[in-house]
Amino acid sequence: MDERAALSLVGGLVSSAGDDAAVVDGTVVTIDMLHEATDFPGGTTRYTAGWRAVGASLSDVAAMGASASAAVAVYGAPDFDEDELTGFVDGASEVCERVDAEYVGGDLDGHDEFTVATAAIGDVDERIGRDGASPGERVVVTGTLGRSAAALRLFEAGEIERANDLFRFDPRVAAGRALGEHATAMMDSSDGLARSLHQLAEASDCGFEIEAGAVPVADELRGLADDPLDEAISFGEDFELVATVPADAVSGVEAACDVPVSVVGEVTESGVSMDGDELADRGWTH
Amino acid sequence: MDERAALSLVGGLVSSAGDDAAVVDGTVVTIDMLHEATDFPGGTTRYTAGWRAVGASLSDVAAMGASASAAVAVYGAPDFDEDELTGFVDGASEVCERVDAEYVGGDLDGHDEFTVATAAIGDVDERIGRDGASPGERVVVTGTLGRSAAALRLFEAGEIERANDLFRFDPRVAAGRALGEHATAMMDSSDGLARSLHQLAEASDCGFEIEAGAVPVADELRGLADDPLDEAISFGEDFELVATVPADAVSGVEAACDVPVSVVGEVTESGVSMDGDELADRGWTH
Repeated sequence: MDERAALSLVGGLVSSAGDDAAVVDGTVVTIDMLHEATDFPGGTTRYTAGWRAVGASLSDVAAMGASASAAVAVYGAPDFDEDELTGFVDGASEVCERVDAEYVGGDLDGHDEFTVATAAIGDVDERIGRDGASPGERVVVTGTLGRSAAALRLFEAGEIERANDLFRFDPRVAAGRALGEHATAMMDSSDGLARSLHQLAEASDCGFEIEAGAVPVADELRGLADDPLDEAISFGEDFELVATVPADAVSGVEAACDVPVSVVGEVTESGVSMDGDELADRGWTH
Repeated sequence: MDERAALSLVGGLVSSAGDDAAVVDGTVVTIDMLHEATDFPGGTTRYTAGWRAVGASLSDVAAMGASASAAVAVYGAPDFDEDELTGFVDGASEVCERVDAEYVGGDLDGHDEFTVATAAIGDVDERIGRDGASPGERVVVTGTLGRSAAALRLFEAGEIERANDLFRFDPRVAAGRALGEHATAMMDSSDGLARSLHQLAEASDCGFEIEAGAVPVADELRGLADDPLDEAISFGEDFELVATVPADAVSGVEAACDVPVSVVGEVTESGVSMDGDELADRGWTH
């Protein structure tokens, strides 16, 4: 069974699975696991790893339209080097500070492969799921897409410091709360825009038409990739928010968000397309 | 740096580290990571693994004197077998049901080694830390000690079904809440009674005198271990609660708990001893 089939199986077993995070009595909770082989390219500092791992969980909280209150992590590694561990905790603490959450510790685990588990909690009055999009609404994306794809190119090229800078990101908690006032469906873009749209389309039983020229491709990716637009759309790992909002709410959302918001297309009855051509369900399978 | 030194380092960096779980605005949150090499002996079913991993996090919540509301998990494995995954989710869901919490899903991760990350949340008005014990108080332990040590022997002996039965446990959430009414310090016994006492002694700046004959050694361990008492005290992995309570609260605590509570000794000024002899700081380092 591949990972998507397995996720679908779990979705059938656990009633509340399927969103970026679970909500229980207004408390949002989410958990993630990242590890060296697939998530931390050679050159990733422990500071960046702590930031990114905890950030991924905070992004899940953001995608529910919630505020984030705290995060915890397990640091699993073959050995515990003081500088590495301090770096990790600093990165984890910093990314929490960025979203007014508190890093409240966690645990250590001896593990052959560097492996990090993170959980974040938050609060929400009205959760934003993936199933509320309706035809005619607009599709918006926060920030830019392709930063992580660019970081990976830079890691490969040995430009380690720039790569680490790009590999850290601000979880869109404030933007998620602003979007949450109007959004009918929302998720983060960690699987890539294309896959995110397919997931939203399936959950909301709708389609999407995207305008290629409106996709906010990260400047950092231009010059590094042969087809920056394609990578921005399908590479994923960017932790921006993808949301649907009524057309008349767009200007209010743009004004309320603390980051640029791009209108990239609209909700249709069915099918996911870009400039009229089918947009394949390609992206990152974690 | 060994794991205990590393934990101490983290404790200096993160103000709220050091207890079984963190508490933020009355919400308890904890995270754990278990993996095949150190936590799941050969023969452990995925059902037992799901139960035990989620149970470990629920036990951390219990140790704070809190109610448990929900748990999530990441299932990391080289492949996703339908029966294994279903078993895991069933075990995770069952252990949540036992403590009136809800298993609300999580995520999957392709991982060379079978690795599980779990987080649990709960609520508490007044947290029970590790630092409130005072000389003269009594030390109590819930249930019995040595079940996991016995399970390990049975796994080694090929008695897989009995081993799995013993390897699952009921997180002491209800007992933790009853104890929480009176306890001055509390933690779970996952590191073993001896190590737990040393940790409580350090946090509370006190000592303990334990009566060997009062330690509730699990019946299942007798006949399997050469020195059942020693293993019950030092093996750990049992997820019972170890708490200190004022002497006049003992009978009330015994009556209020839904499991047997044993008074195993009392809080002293300094030193950790059993029947007058020093009790070494031996136990499980996760």
